[in-house]
Amino acid sequence: MIFALLKRKGKRNHDLLSVVSQSYLRGEDRGVKKAILMAVELRTMVLGHFLVISLALNAGLLYRNYCGGEHKSQNIFSFKSECKNSSSASTMAFLETNFQPSKPALSEVIDLDHGDPTMYERYWQQTGDRTTVVIPGWKFISYFSDVRSLCWFLEPEFASSVVRLHKLVGNAATDGRYIVVGTGSTQLFQAALYAVSPPNASEPISVVSAAPFYSSYPQITDFLRSGLYKWAGDARKFKRDAPYIELVTSPNNPDGLSRVAVVNRDRGVLVHDLAYYWPQYTPISSPPADHDIMLFTVSKSTGHAGTRLGWALVKDKETARKMTEFIVLTSIGVSKESQLRAAKILQVISDSHEQRGIFDEGEAFFEHKYHHMARRWKQLRAAVEKSKLFRLPEFPHGKCEFSGRTFALQPAFAWLKCEGDTEDCEAFLRGHKVLTRSGKHFGESTRHVRISMLPRDEVFDQFTERLASITSLPLPSPSST
Amino acid sequence: MIFALLKRKGKRNHDLLSVVSQSYLRGEDRGVKKAILMAVELRTMVLGHFLVISLALNAGLLYRNYCGGEHKSQNIFSFKSECKNSSSASTMAFLETNFQPSKPALSEVIDLDHGDPTMYERYWQQTGDRTTVVIPGWKFISYFSDVRSLCWFLEPEFASSVVRLHKLVGNAATDGRYIVVGTGSTQLFQAALYAVSPPNASEPISVVSAAPFYSSYPQITDFLRSGLYKWAGDARKFKRDAPYIELVTSPNNPDGLSRVAVVNRDRGVLVHDLAYYWPQYTPISSPPADHDIMLFTVSKSTGHAGTRLGWALVKDKETARKMTEFIVLTSIGVSKESQLRAAKILQVISDSHEQRGIFDEGEAFFEHKYHHMARRWKQLRAAVEKSKLFRLPEFPHGKCEFSGRTFALQPAFAWLKCEGDTEDCEAFLRGHKVLTRSGKHFGESTRHVRISMLPRDEVFDQFTERLASITSLPLPSPSST
Repeated sequence: MIFALLKRKGKRNHDLLSVVSQSYLRGEDRGVKKAILMAVELRTMVLGHFLVISLALNAGLLYRNYCGGEHKSQNIFSFKSECKNSSSASTMAFLETNFQPSKPALSEVIDLDHGDPTMYERYWQQTGDRTTVVIPGWKFISYFSDVRSLCWFLEPEFASSVVRLHKLVGNAATDGRYIVVGTGSTQLFQAALYAVSPPNASEPISVVSAAPFYSSYPQITDFLRSGLYKWAGDARKFKRDAPYIELVTSPNNPDGLSRVAVVNRDRGVLVHDLAYYWPQYTPISSPPADHDIMLFTVSKSTGHAGTRLGWALVKDKETARKMTEFIVLTSIGVSKESQLRAAKILQVISDSHEQRGIFDEGEAFFEHKYHHMARRWKQLRAAVEKSKLFRLPEFPHGKCEFSGRTFALQPAFAWLKCEGDTEDCEAFLRGHKVLTRSGKHFGESTRHVRISMLPRDEVFDQFTERLASITSLPLPSPSST
Repeated sequence: MIFALLKRKGKRNHDLLSVVSQSYLRGEDRGVKKAILMAVELRTMVLGHFLVISLALNAGLLYRNYCGGEHKSQNIFSFKSECKNSSSASTMAFLETNFQPSKPALSEVIDLDHGDPTMYERYWQQTGDRTTVVIPGWKFISYFSDVRSLCWFLEPEFASSVVRLHKLVGNAATDGRYIVVGTGSTQLFQAALYAVSPPNASEPISVVSAAPFYSSYPQITDFLRSGLYKWAGDARKFKRDAPYIELVTSPNNPDGLSRVAVVNRDRGVLVHDLAYYWPQYTPISSPPADHDIMLFTVSKSTGHAGTRLGWALVKDKETARKMTEFIVLTSIGVSKESQLRAAKILQVISDSHEQRGIFDEGEAFFEHKYHHMARRWKQLRAAVEKSKLFRLPEFPHGKCEFSGRTFALQPAFAWLKCEGDTEDCEAFLRGHKVLTRSGKHFGESTRHVRISMLPRDEVFDQFTERLASITSLPLPSPSST
């Protein structure tokens, strides 16, 4: 509308000016000169008015961009109309404080039981709008993402961002693989069990993993008392001459070590959980991992645990088809909102490495997180050194083909051992208000605990401070003397 | 910056003008008058320049709003930089055509096998920005939504929007209930089975449902060959004197009828699937449903099937705790992106009924969808009447306590029967390129088929047109004469 108005008014103004300036050029009388002045003034006034209107429009649009863009994200999330009455200062304060909790006080419990990857929040805040997604209400009505695809609920954008990221990092082969998306790698792990279990066997197939193994494997495998598969414990102790499924988690949860299959007998199927096979935690080897079934998740690669999204790279079509069937039967697909968002985030990670001109120094995701993990391990080792009551594993060094750097593992969990007479390391640390997960859940001794290395900076600092301050064992109780 | 520049230049211009106009007022010589003219021209020029800059800024902001706002949603979704080279006209065409597919040609297959609720897309498009969600990259890092809640991965906003909607519609009691969120009601149904199955029974508990029952129940119950529960078929034929779980789907999938439990013996546990108990499909009775375990899903209430989100209202704390445990073991929670989006959508539905001043006439969600379903059922009955080869159930009328209206059921599926000699109704319709689901999958005869009533308008119109045109049975094949 404003453009049409401008054109119309502009034309009239121009015509008038044209007449008057011609008179002026002809050197006509005083009245004409006055008219010239008036016309020029008129033009000035009209222009001035338009400038005012246009500036008002500028201000309006800038306001709308602010309230409708970045800020709107919190607005919608919190369901409050903050833009109406709040100053930008208070909004920014909200933004800042929301994920920068104050340092826990000395008396507070520090919970490092779960591997909640809140360490990643700050990085994603720093990327600003780049990873913001906007989803209109009419999106994702259908169950279907791509009816032609074997995994028909897989969003093509998510699939392409997964392939791009693996090609960038070089941690897994993707060519000719089927991608199956799941509600976290937890669902995919179960989909893999279902897919590779013989459907008509007289007894359930044995599921094994070398201790220490991920603490949830036994329960996840057995909680429904499936007739298809059954937890059979430590792979190193598996002696039956029967079909089996071996879960190979590499780097391993809880101890961070690289793993290979240990049973190595006929009639074995391997499922590789590569959740932690990313260059912030471990050197990436060459060639890329090339196993039959490889599981990944955003929880531990990008830190988006709340998104509940994982993917499997699968060689065999029938296995991929059965994994897809499992996901249809258990949840008729996977949240498309999560896939959209994860796709965006994986793309930005790739961009941060491939488009260095756009991203600032130190913003490349895996570089940034590598240094973050390196600092944390240094800090933890210093605390352990100071305390003298604990021991950490010594890790081998390896050349990372992604970064070109040679470094020792810096896992997402610390597999800590209590030294001396402390039999129950978890209870001992609980006494110091540090919650960890006992080694017994991982098929190992209670002298070990698993500690998450991925809390927020403030919590990690407090943890290492507290750990360093534990320098004496508890007094033996009267009964044990 | 522009404001500072304006101020600086404006000041200089003003000073010059002031000098010159003072000279003019004093009636000074020709040279001064020329200077006045020049000064006025200069002011005009400066204003003109600012207007151009300001207009450019407006255009830029409008472009950013368009490409970064509503349109960005598709842009992000499709990961194409359409804004860079395309005109807005072509972009709008994309927006329009994306969910308004052309009418399928006569020769095309019409797939009404799945209950894909694409009928809902147009409504959500019409609500515009109201249901748009914006999620910044740093959101939803943590696994946890509310550590104090029994269902700790349930987003509080989603929980409150669920309660608000039930209170508005009056279809289910929420006071004192536990809300458990799931990846669709499919995951919740399995969580319920797990939660109510005796953990240490010598044999699996029987799971039954009155035929015709939802076609996926048998397979979902049995596909893992669980030792906890086992499909035992039609509830009306269940005669064992043993514990059982009865699934009561009301309104029922496939036939849309209201249901009550049919076994009614001791040691029975009921799971009520109320996915379709919404006022666009069925009259809402008073008082609100008040069963022990009630399952709901956004797929059939709001139409957001791709969001994969359901919720359970649970009376018993231990049952809710075990359902939560199931969801932790199978997927460590539920997509927070889906919860955020569903929360927003449920809130807008409530708003559309409670804030009539803001919403236009006919925009109230359940009103709009009630009329939509009414039109479709009228249209389907007219087609069936014209063809004379099919029969539809006659539905009882009921008073809806939500709308105050008395009406007959208008279910999300049509449970169609082939008349005459047609034994396999699904095959017969397939011959006419209409894909439906055979009654045999629902524990009924092959003379029945289930037909989705929720495709897009264009598809539904084509379907009823095609159905009306089927007026003769196929010629008997030579072998059958």
